[in-house]
Amino acid sequence: MARVTVSRPNVSRLNVSRANATGEKASHKAIKRRLIIAGKVLVAEGQDDFTRGHISFRLPDDPNLFFMKPHSIGLDEITMQNILTIDLDGNVVSGTARRHSEVYIHSEILKVRSEVNCVIHTHPTHSVALSATGRPLRCYSQPGALFYQALGVYTDTINLIRSDAMGAAVARALGEGRGVLLKNHGIVVTGASIEEAVIGTIMLENGAMVQLLAEAAGDPAPEFSRDDIEKLKHDISRPEQFKINFDYLARRVKRRGG
Amino acid sequence: MARVTVSRPNVSRLNVSRANATGEKASHKAIKRRLIIAGKVLVAEGQDDFTRGHISFRLPDDPNLFFMKPHSIGLDEITMQNILTIDLDGNVVSGTARRHSEVYIHSEILKVRSEVNCVIHTHPTHSVALSATGRPLRCYSQPGALFYQALGVYTDTINLIRSDAMGAAVARALGEGRGVLLKNHGIVVTGASIEEAVIGTIMLENGAMVQLLAEAAGDPAPEFSRDDIEKLKHDISRPEQFKINFDYLARRVKRRGG
Amino acid sequence: MARVTVSRPNVSRLNVSRANATGEKASHKAIKRRLIIAGKVLVAEGQDDFTRGHISFRLPDDPNLFFMKPHSIGLDEITMQNILTIDLDGNVVSGTARRHSEVYIHSEILKVRSEVNCVIHTHPTHSVALSATGRPLRCYSQPGALFYQALGVYTDTINLIRSDAMGAAVARALGEGRGVLLKNHGIVVTGASIEEAVIGTIMLENGAMVQLLAEAAGDPAPEFSRDDIEKLKHDISRPEQFKINFDYLARRVKRRGG
Amino acid sequence: MARVTVSRPNVSRLNVSRANATGEKASHKAIKRRLIIAGKVLVAEGQDDFTRGHISFRLPDDPNLFFMKPHSIGLDEITMQNILTIDLDGNVVSGTARRHSEVYIHSEILKVRSEVNCVIHTHPTHSVALSATGRPLRCYSQPGALFYQALGVYTDTINLIRSDAMGAAVARALGEGRGVLLKNHGIVVTGASIEEAVIGTIMLENGAMVQLLAEAAGDPAPEFSRDDIEKLKHDISRPEQFKINFDYLARRVKRRGG
Repeated sequence: MARVTVSRPNVSRLNVSRANATGEKASHKAIKRRLIIAGKVLVAEGQDDFTRGHISFRLPDDPNLFFMKPHSIGLDEITMQNILTIDLDGNVVSGTARRHSEVYIHSEILKVRSEVNCVIHTHPTHSVALSATGRPLRCYSQPGALFYQALGVYTDTINLIRSDAMGAAVARALGEGRGVLLKNHGIVVTGASIEEAVIGTIMLENGAMVQLLAEAAGDPAPEFSRDDIEKLKHDISRPEQFKINFDYLARRVKRRGG
Repeated sequence: MARVTVSRPNVSRLNVSRANATGEKASHKAIKRRLIIAGKVLVAEGQDDFTRGHISFRLPDDPNLFFMKPHSIGLDEITMQNILTIDLDGNVVSGTARRHSEVYIHSEILKVRSEVNCVIHTHPTHSVALSATGRPLRCYSQPGALFYQALGVYTDTINLIRSDAMGAAVARALGEGRGVLLKNHGIVVTGASIEEAVIGTIMLENGAMVQLLAEAAGDPAPEFSRDDIEKLKHDISRPEQFKINFDYLARRVKRRGG
Repeated sequence: MARVTVSRPNVSRLNVSRANATGEKASHKAIKRRLIIAGKVLVAEGQDDFTRGHISFRLPDDPNLFFMKPHSIGLDEITMQNILTIDLDGNVVSGTARRHSEVYIHSEILKVRSEVNCVIHTHPTHSVALSATGRPLRCYSQPGALFYQALGVYTDTINLIRSDAMGAAVARALGEGRGVLLKNHGIVVTGASIEEAVIGTIMLENGAMVQLLAEAAGDPAPEFSRDDIEKLKHDISRPEQFKINFDYLARRVKRRGG
Repeated sequence: MARVTVSRPNVSRLNVSRANATGEKASHKAIKRRLIIAGKVLVAEGQDDFTRGHISFRLPDDPNLFFMKPHSIGLDEITMQNILTIDLDGNVVSGTARRHSEVYIHSEILKVRSEVNCVIHTHPTHSVALSATGRPLRCYSQPGALFYQALGVYTDTINLIRSDAMGAAVARALGEGRGVLLKNHGIVVTGASIEEAVIGTIMLENGAMVQLLAEAAGDPAPEFSRDDIEKLKHDISRPEQFKINFDYLARRVKRRGG
């Protein structure tokens, strides 16, 4: 399993302050606005568990920093003001809101997966139940294909991921994959873009629900062949697919008053 | 299995342009308005999977053409402007929006089933799970009777139906039936009218849910006899039933602000 | 199983016309208003299946007549104008809307159960699934106690109850009970009042859901003893309980804009 | 199992009247406002069963009295006016609304658990179904950890808890735990604060749902070790966690018009 090393420049609070002094970059504002919408979409699609989910996004112009939803609010309560800027050691470099103690899920994945920019962690009911069965996600649906041979399993503990060592273990479970089932706890889903991670998160829960329904009904039929599934996986993994579907959910949330 | 051949006149973009120049026909406008409502009803009834479902309707005055929802929008976002006009080879003959790559589900069914005018393709959770069991839909409910011996199964691939050959295979799986389970993928439901296809789509998902619940609980009782089911199938397949029930859902969507 | 015979005077359209001419009775208006609310409550609580459910109520001053929701509308679309007045043979004696062909469920039960005034027929998903298992409702919840030894099973056919003979068979399956599971079709629930029938309908579906969940999870524990259940059944069957709970749902529907 | 005895001063109606005469204490008003919000949150999160749930809170300045939602209204219909003040024998000492007959669940638990101030009783579907399996809650999720070795089971009867003796038996089943499954009936959840009891109630239902899904799918994997679970239990049982998550739900209810 190949790992990518990201060179880590010295990021000082000074630099960030200077950026703020001269006006926050337009690209940063656009990312924060996208995170705000992403949070509303995730709640609208049932990914909320009180204030317990989080989402992060790597700064394109400073890959050793990432924006992250703070502690103590719902995913649908992210604002331009409360988003934190955090470094790959998990230290807050900008922002005054409280940091999620599980920040290391984000920092450690972003550290070793340079092409991943967005990390989401939630506790969706069917995915948690699937993790409890101890069985892998089967390819009984399009979501099953999206995560085909790309869904790691983290079984070290049921506890919160509150140290860099634990975050690194989650990152190892992720490997080169798209997501991780944290046994009896929740899920982690990654993406190059916010859109990819959000759509992946929603699809994983749907795929878990399809599987649990089929297994409860008993004796599911065999999956399709590896080659057949790999082709679909390729087709539904294109970046524009995630953007199109995310944009639709964003419009829907707005229409419904979100 | 008898097939109907539809004679296919040469449809040119020129003809369509001329029609537009002289004002679109009232009947076409009425159909488009009905498709817009159908899309909103389908989403309100839980048939949405991001932007991934589609619906088509054959032009009554030109049976080799059909209207179809475009790519990149939700089923509840169809407008008079974005509906495409497509021929039975899957070519867009009018409209500028992007075409769904799975257009061949529609074109190939409309090619061989002259009495079918509306085709719907969606990914409802319980129907997908039923398809994964590999078992047929049982007649445990009225929806089970509607689809009794009328629900084909397509098991060639989990992939998107992106060629005329694949669409033709789905049409073969449909045969003279009302719908098809696309294994580990979704459903196709047909109707002489938009109303019939929409109500059929919603009922199939309900019938799948009833069956999965009964099978999960274990040891379902035997179904009724073929003769008994056939009578109910006949009674609930009358065109006015679909129209009455669709019209109700349309009123409800409107009342709820859709 | 004891049956009650209701004497049936000759009800003519003339009589009803005369009543209308002199102004409809206040009590009739109050009943109709209650039926309108009942329909909205049933839909809000998930008892809708397109336009397919119905509710009826016996006229207190003319026990051989009953009011009934008409065909072609949803349960939430009952109005003062569209309610039909029907006799115990199923003939419409007042009103111009279309009659449900399954009117005989109502007329035949009202014929033999003089203390029953309200009959509801719907197709709720979990109750239909329970009927498909062929097993009786277990007392795994308070709803299970409400219907303890009071839930008949009708297994003659999956077909619509479109004759007085079929309606009489449903009434026999009901016996002295509170409701009937129509196998692979739906439910019938009765009450002395509208409130009792509505709350019973909602509770039956909840009880079916609890049972299906427990059975799917496997090996439910034994039920409590007959004496223990009978006591609870008695306590939760008091008329005021139904009224209090119905009134709450009515207020809630109104608060939510229904 | 250690029990705490609360000394019980003589509480007279006179005292309460005098308090009202001189203006109700600010702290009492704040508690009542919190109970009103708690009820709306519980309904928004699916804990309603008609008017059948209840919530109570001990007066901080008079630990032998508690506030309690009255009979005949929904959990979302609590007002400053209708909250009852009740003593530890279950007698109403202030307020004119009807008392829940199951008041003894509250009075008997508050009598023996001096650190518990809030008691909630509801009938959530998955928790009732779990109680019917006769199996304990497994630690397949974070909610499972919160209730790890802290969820008693009451199996004396399916009946309503309408006497002090029955309430005392529920309190014994609770022991030093956080909650009780009342077999085939419902749940009781306690907390030092309103926030703790409300979040616990919602989490228990989620934990039951996760378990039922995993068991229905078959052969769940083993739970984590006791030490591992105890650590998580400790981390998610901190008072601020309950407050943060409750406050979020309260904001959400308000945003949604509650």
